[in-house]
Amino acid sequence: MVYLDYSATTPINNEVLDTFIKVSKNYFANPNSHYNIALSSNELIESATKQISEILKVKTSEIIYTSGASESNNMAIKGVCENYQSRGKKIITTKLELSSIVSPLSYLQDKGFDIEFIKLKADGQIDLELLEEMLSDEVLLVTICAVDSELGIRQPVEKIATMLKKYPKIIFHVDMTQCLGKDNIDLQDIDLASFSAHKIYGFKGIGGLIKKEHIQLVPLIHGGKSTTIYRSGTPATSLIASCSKALRLIMENFEEKHALVSKYNNDIRNFLKQFSKVVINSTDKSIPHILNFSILGIKPETFLHALEKDSIYISTKSACSSDNSLSTSVLALTNNKEISSASLRISLSYLTTDEEITIFKKSFKENYYNLIGVSNENSNN
Amino acid sequence: MVYLDYSATTPINNEVLDTFIKVSKNYFANPNSHYNIALSSNELIESATKQISEILKVKTSEIIYTSGASESNNMAIKGVCENYQSRGKKIITTKLELSSIVSPLSYLQDKGFDIEFIKLKADGQIDLELLEEMLSDEVLLVTICAVDSELGIRQPVEKIATMLKKYPKIIFHVDMTQCLGKDNIDLQDIDLASFSAHKIYGFKGIGGLIKKEHIQLVPLIHGGKSTTIYRSGTPATSLIASCSKALRLIMENFEEKHALVSKYNNDIRNFLKQFSKVVINSTDKSIPHILNFSILGIKPETFLHALEKDSIYISTKSACSSDNSLSTSVLALTNNKEISSASLRISLSYLTTDEEITIFKKSFKENYYNLIGVSNENSNN
Repeated sequence: MVYLDYSATTPINNEVLDTFIKVSKNYFANPNSHYNIALSSNELIESATKQISEILKVKTSEIIYTSGASESNNMAIKGVCENYQSRGKKIITTKLELSSIVSPLSYLQDKGFDIEFIKLKADGQIDLELLEEMLSDEVLLVTICAVDSELGIRQPVEKIATMLKKYPKIIFHVDMTQCLGKDNIDLQDIDLASFSAHKIYGFKGIGGLIKKEHIQLVPLIHGGKSTTIYRSGTPATSLIASCSKALRLIMENFEEKHALVSKYNNDIRNFLKQFSKVVINSTDKSIPHILNFSILGIKPETFLHALEKDSIYISTKSACSSDNSLSTSVLALTNNKEISSASLRISLSYLTTDEEITIFKKSFKENYYNLIGVSNENSNN
Repeated sequence: MVYLDYSATTPINNEVLDTFIKVSKNYFANPNSHYNIALSSNELIESATKQISEILKVKTSEIIYTSGASESNNMAIKGVCENYQSRGKKIITTKLELSSIVSPLSYLQDKGFDIEFIKLKADGQIDLELLEEMLSDEVLLVTICAVDSELGIRQPVEKIATMLKKYPKIIFHVDMTQCLGKDNIDLQDIDLASFSAHKIYGFKGIGGLIKKEHIQLVPLIHGGKSTTIYRSGTPATSLIASCSKALRLIMENFEEKHALVSKYNNDIRNFLKQFSKVVINSTDKSIPHILNFSILGIKPETFLHALEKDSIYISTKSACSSDNSLSTSVLALTNNKEISSASLRISLSYLTTDEEITIFKKSFKENYYNLIGVSNENSNN
């Protein structure tokens, strides 16, 4: 198997699984009970939280555990909009966001909020000057992904956070799910940040929202105090411990891992240049882990399934043939419907090997010529 | 260790852990991706869902996975109240509900909803005649736990559901977290029902909401389709498979398990009768798994910590000495502040052993006389 879809989800790191198993067996008591074995569960959660706080350079009280980034995004966006709605009704975002950002924003739009999109520059980053022009007293929230899942463009969220310091009433939320563990991120001036463990070799079903102390929000899940007052529910001790472990492990040998992924990214980019129908959509601002491209004239799902026959797994945004088959992200960047309806995504990992890249290239070449036709390719050269 | 707090949480069944491990290793692909290994993950979820649907006698499309009962309760209550708010603003509930019911109701009260409490009869069950008198066109929602976590009283939720059929616009939600796997429950006429896996020897961080097809609700977590359109987020394959496994296992040898727990409950009840300061709060309508009692004149946390020294773990509602130390549930039943401020809860399991009961009784007797004083006990006899 050549798995090249690490941005969809990651395999479990065995050390993370071991942590989960040990904690499940040895710390089953409810962390909110009042006897010693419950306090041990609670201390384990506190120690996991301390580790996360040190890695992300936030306070332990600023970490809220959730079931994953979808919950974190909903909690952040709906929670602050409900809490601060008297401040203003304008929300600024991008066309690169995931459905767990887009859908709560649509929900708020139906409630009278006004959603505005920042234009992207040719390199896919948002235009900071345009953003500054859009800011006003009416703006309640800016929400921008640190790295989008399709094109992998690293947005200058730290610069945006610095710019927004001049507007202390504007709240800044960042979905850092695709950035965490792949690129460094400085949360110092970011108010809220979402993440998931299953994108960093941890489990599906656990994630978090970083919520800075000065930000208040209406909880999504009301109830008794859990690890914080902002999210109720029996703390999931083993999931929390495993999440902390996953984060610690992904940060180990960060530079080496990044260099390896960069090498593979460059290799594939160079490889793809020989094919006349291939357009690379990821830009020089994309993280090396994500490489988005289109093969003009080939339906992306056709190519995906062709590779699948060789047990190679990549991703396509547009799996169905309806009008929704266009990639909103690629369209926002390219403004080209042909390119946007033909986009494919490879996502790489430090687990990727030379051999896998070789297998991928061989299969890609065969399937490409098979589907495009050698004569068509030559006629364009 | 003598663990007698199974209603707070349960240890993991090793078979459930094995399922989790196998699925984590072999089915890591994102179930929403479009290649064969993702379809396998998705099929595994469908098979887990089918198993749950057969056990609970609901449709597979009526099962929504959540992070646990707190989320399910919030989703049910806030979701239907937002969706159907034009129908009426009255919600009927009991004084026996958990904080994940009480808190969303308080939140809705602040938004103009009117919360009414049904009086309990002497046996702790709600008064059906009084409930019928409270019903009107103004009532949008009735939410009642099948079994409450403190007194363990089994409410006649099936009878309530039948009664409510005459009022098709009233929605009926049941928190069945403490009932599932301990007593049979018929969901036929119940519109919404919440549960958690960690009360049935599964993991913390997974649970579900049964939502009948004819009920609509506004999602708590908006986003793309997950296993349903009602709750977004990457489906947590291994948690879902383990939840289904936990439910299947808890239903195995149901009658034998129930009989064993009943035996221990009777044994402890008879044992407690010899102590003049002990008042048993659980009634003949309580499930045998939960036995609530008060020791008059002893602070419950003092007794809890005394037992803890012998590695015996039971529960108290009132762990702090503030005004909140009263048990709302026990007060609703007894209307007696002394009893309600001194309540303790033992919760039993099919895993409980004769030896554990013997150890418990020995420690109880020693600590009781130690704290009450033998002369005090005698003077009352």
